[in-house]
Amino acid sequence: VLRTAIVAGRLPASSQLPSSRDLAGELGMSRNTVNRALNQLIIEGYLSSHVGRGTFVNELSSTRTSPQGRSKTAQASHISTRGQALITQFSASQLEIYPFTPGLVDFSNFPLSLWRRLQDKHWRLSYPDMLDYSYSGGYAPLRKAVADHLRLARGMSPETDQIIITSGTQQSLELCSQLLADLGEIVWVEDPAYWGALKAFMSKGLTIQPIKVDLEGIAPTAPDMNGPPPRLIYVTPSHQYPTGSVMSMARRAELLSIARGSHAWILEDDYDSEFHFHGVPQPPLAELDQDGRVLYMGSFSKVLYPGLKLGYLVVPRNLASAFKQGHYDLNRPGQIPLQAALAEFIEHGHFAKTLYLSRVAHAEKRATLMDSLQPCLKNGVTISGVNQGLHLCVNLPKIVNDVQIAQRLAQKHLTVRPLSAYCFNRKDLRGLVIGYGYAPLTEIKTHGPTLAREISQAILELKVS
Amino acid sequence: VLRTAIVAGRLPASSQLPSSRDLAGELGMSRNTVNRALNQLIIEGYLSSHVGRGTFVNELSSTRTSPQGRSKTAQASHISTRGQALITQFSASQLEIYPFTPGLVDFSNFPLSLWRRLQDKHWRLSYPDMLDYSYSGGYAPLRKAVADHLRLARGMSPETDQIIITSGTQQSLELCSQLLADLGEIVWVEDPAYWGALKAFMSKGLTIQPIKVDLEGIAPTAPDMNGPPPRLIYVTPSHQYPTGSVMSMARRAELLSIARGSHAWILEDDYDSEFHFHGVPQPPLAELDQDGRVLYMGSFSKVLYPGLKLGYLVVPRNLASAFKQGHYDLNRPGQIPLQAALAEFIEHGHFAKTLYLSRVAHAEKRATLMDSLQPCLKNGVTISGVNQGLHLCVNLPKIVNDVQIAQRLAQKHLTVRPLSAYCFNRKDLRGLVIGYGYAPLTEIKTHGPTLAREISQAILELKVS
Repeated sequence: VLRTAIVAGRLPASSQLPSSRDLAGELGMSRNTVNRALNQLIIEGYLSSHVGRGTFVNELSSTRTSPQGRSKTAQASHISTRGQALITQFSASQLEIYPFTPGLVDFSNFPLSLWRRLQDKHWRLSYPDMLDYSYSGGYAPLRKAVADHLRLARGMSPETDQIIITSGTQQSLELCSQLLADLGEIVWVEDPAYWGALKAFMSKGLTIQPIKVDLEGIAPTAPDMNGPPPRLIYVTPSHQYPTGSVMSMARRAELLSIARGSHAWILEDDYDSEFHFHGVPQPPLAELDQDGRVLYMGSFSKVLYPGLKLGYLVVPRNLASAFKQGHYDLNRPGQIPLQAALAEFIEHGHFAKTLYLSRVAHAEKRATLMDSLQPCLKNGVTISGVNQGLHLCVNLPKIVNDVQIAQRLAQKHLTVRPLSAYCFNRKDLRGLVIGYGYAPLTEIKTHGPTLAREISQAILELKVS
Repeated sequence: VLRTAIVAGRLPASSQLPSSRDLAGELGMSRNTVNRALNQLIIEGYLSSHVGRGTFVNELSSTRTSPQGRSKTAQASHISTRGQALITQFSASQLEIYPFTPGLVDFSNFPLSLWRRLQDKHWRLSYPDMLDYSYSGGYAPLRKAVADHLRLARGMSPETDQIIITSGTQQSLELCSQLLADLGEIVWVEDPAYWGALKAFMSKGLTIQPIKVDLEGIAPTAPDMNGPPPRLIYVTPSHQYPTGSVMSMARRAELLSIARGSHAWILEDDYDSEFHFHGVPQPPLAELDQDGRVLYMGSFSKVLYPGLKLGYLVVPRNLASAFKQGHYDLNRPGQIPLQAALAEFIEHGHFAKTLYLSRVAHAEKRATLMDSLQPCLKNGVTISGVNQGLHLCVNLPKIVNDVQIAQRLAQKHLTVRPLSAYCFNRKDLRGLVIGYGYAPLTEIKTHGPTLAREISQAILELKVS
């Protein structure tokens, strides 16, 4: 609302905004919600905040357009076909800052003051070489801390030298694409799939071949097996994004055998493995692998905070030196003092503690959301993907238009994603991907029942029409 | 020496090293040099330092190999053709931590304690949204600070909305490649060229077409003009890397006209423009451009420190919204508290002050190096590229093998790069690229004359042989 008012010139430059308390009263919203909206506008540059003086409207440049107002077709004529595909396919259609957007986490409980102290400590201890690029795959004590963490948390046994510190899963995927695959080579991806991975592969010139996912994970069929072999196989076995399937042991063994037979590399994105709520967790493919064909990747963004931009890649031993050099050549990594702070954060148990608290909080949010959704689980509606991760999937009958339901929910400020938005060839999957990472428990309690009611209502109406 | 001793097992795990003072005495090196070597081994994981207890040797994993000892051919069979090209072509053959390596800067004078205070302040002021990814091309106050800086320092007039904060020039180049060019499309690069840019283009599937550089910068010939048109033209007009040419006004106008005629984008890497020592600086192509065909990029790594990993891209107005979205889709940028600290650092004049001090210090280093090199400027040896930047180029007669000279210098621990290592098709360029960014003035005074003597001596011998 505010952004629109500023863009339209109804709030002139330099005018002072009312306090967030007054605004909240005026708009009938909680003060938290108002503050969050104001902060976002400060980051984007619509507003400036001056301590002790208040919040002011900035002068708008003539080129600024609202995110909602940007016209994709107007841009499209200027950029490459690859660029057009990147920014128009597999994207959210608008800024989603509503409670149930999948892939978001609530990082307001991150131990900020501890983190501040650790960072300041390591800046104080830093020596000039720590300000340089990192030539050796990352700061050694952080690589060791990650290896120790994976040993404890995932039963893996990597050596420190196999760990490469990256700026997150996106960079890990790009590095693997560029060092392991040539232009036009085939990458198997799950259908439906995680958008970020698709974009990494598309932009690096790989040919994407979607492979159907079932309840046991990626499920290659005979035609898939008899086609040209893949160079890369990208999977999210701990909690398939977005269906939530957990890959079975049988399927894991089968996939390793396929990789061996076709000389393919498996890229194991151990997405959401930290959030395990039920049953026995499966060992990662990287640990089952006997042939050094699995590259394992993780990130700290779901447990700590997304803007940290530190993740890791565990590579087979005989690739370690090539990956260190390629990472330096392509990315010139740095941020060693930050890496040092994170190493101590992990070594001294703060990461484990933060993860524990986060897991407890999310378990409660998950249970509350599942309870709220019970009333709509009828007429062929089921729920899946609830044992791990920070989202679940409400599966709808095939005849239901999930995009329409998501649009109706968005009008009530409840953002969920239609399952079909993640599909390539699948026409049989319709559903809603609902995240519970972002919303606080109170909002899940408030909005969960609305969600269930709207879903039931929409199905009735859409079935009729 | 130490690394070799550790790898060879002559220094067993857990053994304590003598103090850096004792080591310096024993090895006949300055304590600074010893400390730098020890710090590097801590970053790489060979050593651990414990405050108040000393420095200890770590247990080595069985896969660890020394950087010098890595065998490129052994890796090559595992990785893609693209990956092999990336890590074997256009790379330094070994770790270069010696005084005259081009592209390195001395960041030991960076105002570390001020920077620590600013970072801590902005972490204290940060609110949860600042821990999230950045959706809007970077933290708005930093984008404004960069626009203001470019207005003052380069006479440009970008609007804040045209500035995209990236993790540096490497990411800026990759973003441009992916959003503006399709697989196989042609990018004109300077011959000789900057390695990092070549790798960005190679890894993104572009076809590299080298264009000869002369004293006025990139100089397309009739065959270049009559061939298939380029999609991208990558140039370093302020101080061509590595020859040091400054692009003339006539050439700038010509290049803009070529871009207009062939619907190409110019990627202007304003490398080294901060370090201007002589004559009137030329206006950037981005400022001369009337058609919105120039993308301008800069970084903070040369003035502040490389590991900061923040740079910027100035895009034409009609590309701003596509680049913001593409940047988010491909890179999930973050680090907003760090961006906030940098914004204040620039706004409050600390950046300008640091740059001023750095410029003064480098002017003296440049003058000292030029004086030292005078004695070898005979027998067809000339010097160029001295008006800007942090390196210069000693041009040798065509018949001289510059790789051999560089190898001989390396044996005396003086790392310079042979000009031919940067060439594609050029057989007429032989020379030595000598950096004065990294070595302190005292080292330039000590080693400069040796450099001159060795060059003269080598030319005499190599001419005879």
